[in-house]
Amino acid sequence: MITLLLPLLLAQAAAAQAAGRAEPDPRSSSEIVATAPAGDWSTIAAEDLLVMDLAPNAGASRRRIVIQLMPPPFARPWLANIRTLATAHWWDGTSINRVQDNYVVQWGDASEKKPLPPRIAAAPESAYTVAYAELTNGALTPGPADVYASLTHFFRGWPIASDALNPTPRAAWPVHCYGMVGVGRDVSPNTGSGAELYVVIGHAPRHLDRNIALVGRVIDGVEHLSSLPRGTLALGFYERAEQRVPITQIRLASELPTSDRPQFQYLSTGSETWARYAAARANRKDAFFIRPAGIADICNLPVPIRRIP
Amino acid sequence: MITLLLPLLLAQAAAAQAAGRAEPDPRSSSEIVATAPAGDWSTIAAEDLLVMDLAPNAGASRRRIVIQLMPPPFARPWLANIRTLATAHWWDGTSINRVQDNYVVQWGDASEKKPLPPRIAAAPESAYTVAYAELTNGALTPGPADVYASLTHFFRGWPIASDALNPTPRAAWPVHCYGMVGVGRDVSPNTGSGAELYVVIGHAPRHLDRNIALVGRVIDGVEHLSSLPRGTLALGFYERAEQRVPITQIRLASELPTSDRPQFQYLSTGSETWARYAAARANRKDAFFIRPAGIADICNLPVPIRRIP
Repeated sequence: MITLLLPLLLAQAAAAQAAGRAEPDPRSSSEIVATAPAGDWSTIAAEDLLVMDLAPNAGASRRRIVIQLMPPPFARPWLANIRTLATAHWWDGTSINRVQDNYVVQWGDASEKKPLPPRIAAAPESAYTVAYAELTNGALTPGPADVYASLTHFFRGWPIASDALNPTPRAAWPVHCYGMVGVGRDVSPNTGSGAELYVVIGHAPRHLDRNIALVGRVIDGVEHLSSLPRGTLALGFYERAEQRVPITQIRLASELPTSDRPQFQYLSTGSETWARYAAARANRKDAFFIRPAGIADICNLPVPIRRIP
Repeated sequence: MITLLLPLLLAQAAAAQAAGRAEPDPRSSSEIVATAPAGDWSTIAAEDLLVMDLAPNAGASRRRIVIQLMPPPFARPWLANIRTLATAHWWDGTSINRVQDNYVVQWGDASEKKPLPPRIAAAPESAYTVAYAELTNGALTPGPADVYASLTHFFRGWPIASDALNPTPRAAWPVHCYGMVGVGRDVSPNTGSGAELYVVIGHAPRHLDRNIALVGRVIDGVEHLSSLPRGTLALGFYERAEQRVPITQIRLASELPTSDRPQFQYLSTGSETWARYAAARANRKDAFFIRPAGIADICNLPVPIRRIP
């Protein structure tokens, strides 16, 4: 048991080293982000944004949710399916069918009978992780200590865990933080097609890591999902068909008219601003806090996202 | 840095030992709880339940939230104030004023002008923690490894952290998990009276531990708070007065007519059933999971609560 914990020890040392790259910064994390140089922001390609429009609610307000899809090498087979489903307009007219408090919001075809488009391929369970060697091109930034994995990292703006303290590092995988989007599935060996998706709306359900494919995260409008009425059947499924929330359409942003395309940037996790931001999140210094925590867990380090100014 | 992490190492060893007290149990955590002997459940006294009724919503459904107050020695000065406020019916006619996504729902007097009842006392910051020695009467059960504290425990059904691996253990404190109820306050040295309360509705904001008083947790009806529309002003405050959610009344259950008193029990965290439950949460074995996590962090070990059968 003790030997199993050594990686945790080294991970925290690595995280401290990462935070140490930045000089102590007296500003709050939000002030640090607000003054980031333009070059520390990375624009998200329209091909990597999935835009979900829900039917207007009683208040007739627009409900748009923007999802950023994960970059390679993560979740490749499911992401290929998801792009196929989006370009086939397969989700149009489907619905949100499940809202489980402190867990997930899930959508797809409630009838479970709608035929999938051609070219939807089954993904292997092995694709829940990627080869660590595929990430070691300088894009990894050390993350904080963790009780679920031996190391954490940020990779091109995404929270990642790995076994990279093994003598032979093998695997890396994305982690289930608030807002992350995953692929609903039946019991193993089913891995899900990508037609049924969920968003985390509670405390990070890290036990799902490496058990389900994560394919993206909500970067705008998560409140339209997290504030939905909870379903009253087992697992939070809605009891009556009329409780389901109709999905008007889901599109890749690249398919939308230019005037209607959301445009976002994320703070590069390899940047100096990121290092200062992460250090400030771990050691809050404003007049409110009397005892800084000294650490922010990986899901308490959300990667800053902004509309392109 | 390395020496700072040694406690974490020992904590996990302690957690493993705790889990090891139970024989491996092939059942799921919910099956284990469903068959717990009656003696493993502890009834919550009516004096320790705070019952909040919101005005009926558009669907005219009742919205009742039940909060269990923390046991001594935790948060004594705020809990004395909260009992005074409840018996004075001080919250009747106040409102929920703030809903911040992935963070908190907060209520109190939006005008900030309503006089407090007599006998409301200011609490010192030192009361954010308690003396560890006050808990060492056999009621502590080891909890899982943690990145925010050197040890975690469960105390009479509550998630607790401590510095108990110090040569001279000093302090213990409750942790900010989903559903925990805390005392809103102004900047330090203000500690809040207890008139302004919040509930955690997102990923555990552990940086608030030891910086704010925790006084209880929602044990029923949290969905009536977590599914409220998010406020659009800074920190999630509602922009317009009519967006606030009216609170009809807040009462100690002991003040309600017997027929209207909620009656709940929690699973004793010193019981054999608890040890089996915690081990099963860390190592899920059903047909869905292909890779058990091996651990459940302290906020992924919610203490089972049930209505008295």
